[in-house]
Amino acid sequence: MQIISTITALRHRLRDEESVAFVPTMGNLHEGHLDLVRVAREHGRCVVVSIFVNPLQFGVNEDFSKYPRTLEQDCKLLEQCGVDVVFAPSEQDLYTQPQQVMVDPPAIANELCGAFRSGHFRGVATVVLKLFNIVQPQVAVFGKKDYQQLHIVRQIVAQLNLPIEIIGSETVRAADGLALSSRNQYLNPTERTEAAFLCRTLANMGKAMRDQAALNQAKLNQAKLNNLRDFSSLEQEARDTLNARGWKVEYIAIRCSSTLLPLTAGDKDVVILAAAWLGKTRLIDNLEMNLQDGLS
Amino acid sequence: MQIISTITALRHRLRDEESVAFVPTMGNLHEGHLDLVRVAREHGRCVVVSIFVNPLQFGVNEDFSKYPRTLEQDCKLLEQCGVDVVFAPSEQDLYTQPQQVMVDPPAIANELCGAFRSGHFRGVATVVLKLFNIVQPQVAVFGKKDYQQLHIVRQIVAQLNLPIEIIGSETVRAADGLALSSRNQYLNPTERTEAAFLCRTLANMGKAMRDQAALNQAKLNQAKLNNLRDFSSLEQEARDTLNARGWKVEYIAIRCSSTLLPLTAGDKDVVILAAAWLGKTRLIDNLEMNLQDGLS
Repeated sequence: MQIISTITALRHRLRDEESVAFVPTMGNLHEGHLDLVRVAREHGRCVVVSIFVNPLQFGVNEDFSKYPRTLEQDCKLLEQCGVDVVFAPSEQDLYTQPQQVMVDPPAIANELCGAFRSGHFRGVATVVLKLFNIVQPQVAVFGKKDYQQLHIVRQIVAQLNLPIEIIGSETVRAADGLALSSRNQYLNPTERTEAAFLCRTLANMGKAMRDQAALNQAKLNQAKLNNLRDFSSLEQEARDTLNARGWKVEYIAIRCSSTLLPLTAGDKDVVILAAAWLGKTRLIDNLEMNLQDGLS
Repeated sequence: MQIISTITALRHRLRDEESVAFVPTMGNLHEGHLDLVRVAREHGRCVVVSIFVNPLQFGVNEDFSKYPRTLEQDCKLLEQCGVDVVFAPSEQDLYTQPQQVMVDPPAIANELCGAFRSGHFRGVATVVLKLFNIVQPQVAVFGKKDYQQLHIVRQIVAQLNLPIEIIGSETVRAADGLALSSRNQYLNPTERTEAAFLCRTLANMGKAMRDQAALNQAKLNQAKLNNLRDFSSLEQEARDTLNARGWKVEYIAIRCSSTLLPLTAGDKDVVILAAAWLGKTRLIDNLEMNLQDGLS
């Protein structure tokens, strides 16, 4: 495995590679990242993992400076996973000049997480495009845990005509269901126990949606409109429950999984997305589901 | 020469090309475009010319609908110039969905032409990036006549880390000095005669700058500050002269040629840029010069 820190050296290294699969990360790797690497290995002969904590995607009051940086440990893990190249550029190398050219993401970037993290997806979109242009992969793998990010990256690839296949990889979870995240280590032991309640809440919502859809189906044709109305009360209940347990919910939303827009009649593939603070830690999670399971 | 109208077919055609030189155009080709093609032929084994009138870069009151479309004639000219592939996509193919992902150009895009054509360079930046991603050239050639556009494209390439060499090609002029442009055909015969006064004005300004610089040099060290002050009065005189002859000047500006920012002490490579309306036709032109010629 080679560890490369400059754009020039990386381009030189990859010049003759015909098939590159790319996993962009901010380092501080856990089993979730390593799973992305395994997926990448199935799709490209040469697997490149970037490690770069991107200042552009952190808000002024966010955790850019304290975000954990563990390059040496990360490289050990990546070597064990059979990664070919780690690209760990300096901020100076990636932002040689103040970044003025930015990628404006689609409008959905202002909703959900974007409504609470102004400019976040603009920063993500810009660094992802820069990294794509540097690595020039045929395939790039992103985790479904950052569901909105994955959606936005897909939109960027489609609308900017990038010749890259984007693969969304399933979320890896702890034994109690908590989605793995570098930010989990900010949690104290009590918070860590409580944290799993987020994914349980989403699972409960999912079950309630299925039950409700099946019930409405029995009532025949007025079903769809009722579903939409009832689902919004499910969102509210979930918010109330979490807030009552001491969480500070940013959003819990049931959306169409292919557009991330609010459900409209006819939508079948849905995703429940949530972001909530537990103490000083912001956690996100989501659950995909197919409403036909309940409606059929 | 192949004429290709879909992205899929173009990608297929170019898949095994090792060296592609690209000339993006809006068609209605004249000798200026053909000169870009000649430059491209010196830089790539396979020359691709795109023809696409990009709606994103036209303002609501601009000439998108009446912009001359002459595909058949264009293709004849390009074949004579030894072009390998003409890429003439439909609007539907290039903008399959409403374009939400946009490239935000650098701040300079709001000055000069950008101050009068809101959103223009955002539209240019976005379509140029899309075309770059589709064609994936090693080299792309742009005319210096659209000087600010060339500057912005260079910034996009640098700041988004595109592996493309951008070549700026000299402006081709009519016998009387008028810069060739598809929009020149909007001029009536009287206007066409008057139109050459724009480049003569820039040439006169250039001469006056050299004279003044030489004169100030003789007065020794206070020279640079005087230059800056005096040059702004040259801009004003040129505006007044053109307006008095019936033009409507948008801007005439003496700028640093590498940043397009106003001159600061020490700048040597400068460019005089102008945009002005003659009747219903908007003309632009520019003149590069090196102030050391006068100062030495």
